[in-house]
Amino acid sequence: MTLIIDCHGHFTTEPQKHHDFRKAQVAYAEGKAHERPVYPGISDEELSVIVEGNQLRLQKERGSDLTIISPRASGMGHHIGNVDIATEWATISNDCVNRIVDLFPENFAGVCQLPQTVDGDLKPVIAELERRVEQGFVGSNLNPDPSGGRWSAPPIYDEWWDPMWEAMAALDVPAMIHVSGSCERCLHTTGAHYINADTAVFMQLIQGDLFERHPTLRLIIPHGGGAAPYHWGRYRGLSIMLEKPPLGQHLMNNLFFDTCVYHQAGIDTLFRVVDKKNILFGSELLGAVKALDPETGHSFDDTKRYIDALNLSTEDRHAIFEGNVRRVYPLLDKKLKAQNR
Amino acid sequence: MTLIIDCHGHFTTEPQKHHDFRKAQVAYAEGKAHERPVYPGISDEELSVIVEGNQLRLQKERGSDLTIISPRASGMGHHIGNVDIATEWATISNDCVNRIVDLFPENFAGVCQLPQTVDGDLKPVIAELERRVEQGFVGSNLNPDPSGGRWSAPPIYDEWWDPMWEAMAALDVPAMIHVSGSCERCLHTTGAHYINADTAVFMQLIQGDLFERHPTLRLIIPHGGGAAPYHWGRYRGLSIMLEKPPLGQHLMNNLFFDTCVYHQAGIDTLFRVVDKKNILFGSELLGAVKALDPETGHSFDDTKRYIDALNLSTEDRHAIFEGNVRRVYPLLDKKLKAQNR
Repeated sequence: MTLIIDCHGHFTTEPQKHHDFRKAQVAYAEGKAHERPVYPGISDEELSVIVEGNQLRLQKERGSDLTIISPRASGMGHHIGNVDIATEWATISNDCVNRIVDLFPENFAGVCQLPQTVDGDLKPVIAELERRVEQGFVGSNLNPDPSGGRWSAPPIYDEWWDPMWEAMAALDVPAMIHVSGSCERCLHTTGAHYINADTAVFMQLIQGDLFERHPTLRLIIPHGGGAAPYHWGRYRGLSIMLEKPPLGQHLMNNLFFDTCVYHQAGIDTLFRVVDKKNILFGSELLGAVKALDPETGHSFDDTKRYIDALNLSTEDRHAIFEGNVRRVYPLLDKKLKAQNR
Repeated sequence: MTLIIDCHGHFTTEPQKHHDFRKAQVAYAEGKAHERPVYPGISDEELSVIVEGNQLRLQKERGSDLTIISPRASGMGHHIGNVDIATEWATISNDCVNRIVDLFPENFAGVCQLPQTVDGDLKPVIAELERRVEQGFVGSNLNPDPSGGRWSAPPIYDEWWDPMWEAMAALDVPAMIHVSGSCERCLHTTGAHYINADTAVFMQLIQGDLFERHPTLRLIIPHGGGAAPYHWGRYRGLSIMLEKPPLGQHLMNNLFFDTCVYHQAGIDTLFRVVDKKNILFGSELLGAVKALDPETGHSFDDTKRYIDALNLSTEDRHAIFEGNVRRVYPLLDKKLKAQNR
């Protein structure tokens, strides 16, 4: 039997006091308030009720077994404050996720938020990753643009990032490339900045030689790879113009897309264009689009339905829902084996 | 018989002296050179030879009849210099296009570059549009981000742009939304910035009420609508969350996508998702991707092949190749009628 593993979930049902703390912390970080707020905490009971009523309920309704969960992506806010603030916020956010995993170890595995900043010091980022992996986290969300739409960090292929890749290799964890909220009025967070960052990083990977230099590195581009599958011909052509190897060889031994594409035609395109070994089931559960599709009567982000409609072979279905994600996240595979799954 | 009209071509085969002038003009604009260069000009004979050997040759080879041609989009460089420099550069670039149209009136119609700047004064922009329409141009390329990836202009739905829309309504011309070169190292011009701008503007249009306020306005988002068709479900869902009317009513009476999508699976997605009344044949002829697809043996940007493979009904084929573009560009329709076409 195939486990249904959702590689892309977020804890986006935080209680109001969690948001209030962040608001006060941001005000403090920006010098608009003198008092540094103290995080009020969420009791285990409170957290259980929230998760049971939302993420767990939807897992059951939609028929999935386990979600790789991370803090709210748009809330990471790496453009706000210094390393001190970023570290405090990542600590609080990751502690929450860690407790959800402890409360429901069969239903969740953790992916951590990193204390990235616009200044960009990678040392505390790597320290937080190491600490969380030791706790049982299986990967991280890496923001390629901590400036929130201003793209002030070096491109992902730049050697500046190498310490991060080396730490990930040592820990044997992948990263999902995931930006946070947009600072630009012209770039809507979930409608433009997310998809555009996916597309921009895909193109950066074509331009560079990241996977040649780091052959064991594994990255996941979410939201079905941004615009890449729809414009696959453009990218194959640009690769040729840049005298790079074919995409299959240059990128697709190390790069994976999730299935956060919210309609059948989009999912069909993804599966037609991209090799099934590179696709991981994901839904962005309780994520960007919380609405019912009036054309289907189902939630836009119930992506399992679109995949089920593909009538995949047993082998392909297993790869998409379980096999690929266990291969890309070896620490998840280890956890599952310890649970006899 | 259906005319095959390519709505998206650029003059990208400029002689070296044209590039040399621009380089010297930029150096002058940036204070790196004291002498203001003088444009050397291109003789009619020279221009004929260039166009016959490239754009016209490809029209014949690929079986198209007429191309709506504009200056090289990545060369517009609206982030460089002030209104004076932008106006000189738009004048030179548009003069070139105007002469191509004069030399081959049955093969080309002109779309103009606008002297936009980061400061953003729209008066000279509108003046250039009016002057060119009087000369016979049928539309313009409007840059939603003259800052080249920094998104310093207001979003397209902001009232700041209204004088532009009013001028376009008075002239009865549409605009293709088209950014220029990227200033950001992280955003490759043709592989990220172009596609991302298309996607960002599509989302801006969802957020705003531009077409409600300007019901006769017609905009074309090139490159197959950026990521929009692939993520159509996401955009339908976000529209619902923002309490906007359905996309068909909110946007698709005024918004059009071209077919600059360089593989069959992408074109298939475009035609499956988007109503045929909203699709205009385009190839970006001599544009972003100049390479042969090793999988097909044909040029990636020979988009007519992908459309031909759809086996459209005679009526749909006519709409895509001729009918829609004549409806969206009424001044082109007028020119064609004057030519008894």
